[in-house]
Order: sequence, then structure tokens, then C-alpha cells
Amino acid sequence: MAVVQFTIVPLGTGTTSLSAYVAQVHKALDESGVKHSLTPMGTVLEGPLDELLAVIRQMHELPFAAGSQRVMTLINIDDRRDKTGTIEQKLKSVHDKL
Amino acid sequence: MAVVQFTIVPLGTGTTSLSAYVAQVHKALDESGVKHSLTPMGTVLEGPLDELLAVIRQMHELPFAAGSQRVMTLINIDDRRDKTGTIEQKLKSVHDKL
Amino acid sequence: MAVVQFTIVPLGTGTTSLSAYVAQVHKALDESGVKHSLTPMGTVLEGPLDELLAVIRQMHELPFAAGSQRVMTLINIDDRRDKTGTIEQKLKSVHDKL
Amino acid sequence: MAVVQFTIVPLGTGTTSLSAYVAQVHKALDESGVKHSLTPMGTVLEGPLDELLAVIRQMHELPFAAGSQRVMTLINIDDRRDKTGTIEQKLKSVHDKL
Repeated sequence: MAVVQFTIVPLGTGTTSLSAYVAQVHKALDESGVKHSLTPMGTVLEGPLDELLAVIRQMHELPFAAGSQRVMTLINIDDRRDKTGTIEQKLKSVHDKL
Repeated sequence: MAVVQFTIVPLGTGTTSLSAYVAQVHKALDESGVKHSLTPMGTVLEGPLDELLAVIRQMHELPFAAGSQRVMTLINIDDRRDKTGTIEQKLKSVHDKL
Repeated sequence: MAVVQFTIVPLGTGTTSLSAYVAQVHKALDESGVKHSLTPMGTVLEGPLDELLAVIRQMHELPFAAGSQRVMTLINIDDRRDKTGTIEQKLKSVHDKL
Repeated sequence: MAVVQFTIVPLGTGTTSLSAYVAQVHKALDESGVKHSLTPMGTVLEGPLDELLAVIRQMHELPFAAGSQRVMTLINIDDRRDKTGTIEQKLKSVHDKL
């Protein structure tokens, strides 16, 4: 199990707004069945790493399908093998110490 | 107003757990008065950019004060001047399109 | 063709040095045949995006095979479809304007 | 001494090309006297951390001055206190192990 954040940034779109692209990604994620969470600076996924990377790869295509010619995608993988790292566990670990 | 995510990663600590460091940062942020939000992969701040960068600079010192010898800090700044970009506005813009 | 930077960070290793892990990645990249370049903060690859992501996925396993229990991997994809984006072209575009 | 990579991404510019913005940053860095290196995916600086962050903060304003209304800036700080971490030392440490 891994927790992965990604941010997809279409370049040269002529508009400063990205929310339409983000909404498109979240509709596709809802259909994908992958556990996901929207944060102010990206989308966080949880699950088997190969599955998550395949999903992000698909999401990366969405702005191109919508007409973009250049897309920057940032991915941050947190992969832990000594215990099951999940979104809930990560947040709970911090809250328990507060 | 900017929205900024940061993630502080102490290296070579001998433990795979980072939650004690994250909790320390959040206690300091609570005292700072800066608007902040904990996400599974980092902390998101909102406010005047110079103020946020000064706060992150202070947070970056915390692991050193706790004994770390090497710290990697990732910062992602989203700075918008055509409208007031806030955490709430960013999330709302996406939800309105879902 | 895409240009992709990645940085693999093993956590909790007990040593502040990362160069042994980076060297291991570069030996594997030399054998892979993928075009790659070492920079001070990461490794840059050039090629078809699916191929690059598959290579990074393999590299991400190397610290685990060497005993790490938690690995953070950062990936930054620059994918351009209106022209062939390569490492050389990107650097040349900037130098031509200097 | 820290080594810091940053990438400045103006959004909504209407052009997929970023090289004019990168060139502008490098002209300013040449005048600043800060040690810097252009890589395919960002700019790497070396020096006292506070000085580097102040420089990046100035560079972040350049696209706004050129008419951009939204700028995303990515910063990756590698700060080491057990030895002097420099661009040259980081690359040499890896090459010595190859």
C-alpha cells in the first residue's frame, strides 16, 4: 500500500483557472474506484503502488484530450513496507501526538 | 494571498516514522496564527507569501533542533494575482464543477 | 517524448548520505539504455513517457532491495505534444535567449 | 550551506513555451552573484539557505512583472549540517561510487 499525491498542471492554456481540469480528474477518479482525496494543492491516492501509477498515467492524458499541448505532472510517492501506510493512518499518527 | 504546501523530511533519522516531526510542526503552526491545514502528504498554508515563506523557514529548523543533521524540505507555491486564491476558494471551484 | 526528473529518498536509513543509493540507480540506468542525466537534486530522463515511468518504478524498488523500509519518490513529468521536447532542446531554448 | 532546486511555472500564459521566463531568471541570477546551475527541469542554487530563499522569492516575481497572473513555484531544499553540502560535492559523492 502506498500513499501518492499528484498535481496535474496544463501549460499554455490561456486561462489561469485549473479547476475545470481538476474536476475532470475527480470525475474520472470517482469512476475508477481508487480511494482518493482532494486537497488544496493536489489529489491524494491510496492503494497498491502499481495501480495508483496506472491511474495517474491515465489522468495525465485528460488535459491533452481537452486540447492542452503541454502538461506538467508532479507525483510524490510515500511507500512504506514496515507497516500499512494509509491516508487515515498517516493523519491519525500525527493527531495522536498533538 | 498565496496557497503553499510544504513537506519537511528529516533524513538519516534511523526511524521510518515522521509523525513526531509533523506533530512538532503543527504545534508550532497552531501558535503562529497562520492558517494551516494538515493533508496526508504535507501541510498547506494560506496567507501573504512572504509571511508563509518565513513560517516555513522556521519550521525547517525544527528537525535540526531535534537532532537531525540533514533535512529535505519541499515547497509548492500557488500564487495568484487576478483573484484571491484561498484554500477554501480552490476547493470550492472544483466542487462547483463536480 | 517526455522529460522526467525523479528523486528517490530512502527514509529512516540511519545515515544522512544518499549517494550510495543514487549510484545504485545510475548503474541500473546505464544498463537500461534509457537516456539519463545526473543533476545535483535528481535524475533526469528523456524518452517515451510510459517507458520512463516503468524505469522509475523499477528504480523505486532498489532501496527496498537494499533494506530500506520506507521510500519517498518525487517525480516531475514535462510532457509536450506540440513539439519534441528533449533535454537538449530544453537547455538550448534557454541558452538561445541568453 | 544548502543546495536548492527551484522551478517557476507561469500559468495561463497562452503559450506552451517557458524558455523566455527561464532565460529571464538566469539573467537575473547572473547579476545576483549566487552560484547557480541550469538543469533540464529547474535551476539549482548553492549557498546559505536564507540567501537562496531570498533570491528565489525575487525570481518568483519576474513572471508577474512580465504580465503573468498566476505562478506556481516548486522549491526543493537539501540542507545538511553534518558536512558542507555543495553541488560539486553531491555530484562527486555519486561519481566516486560509480
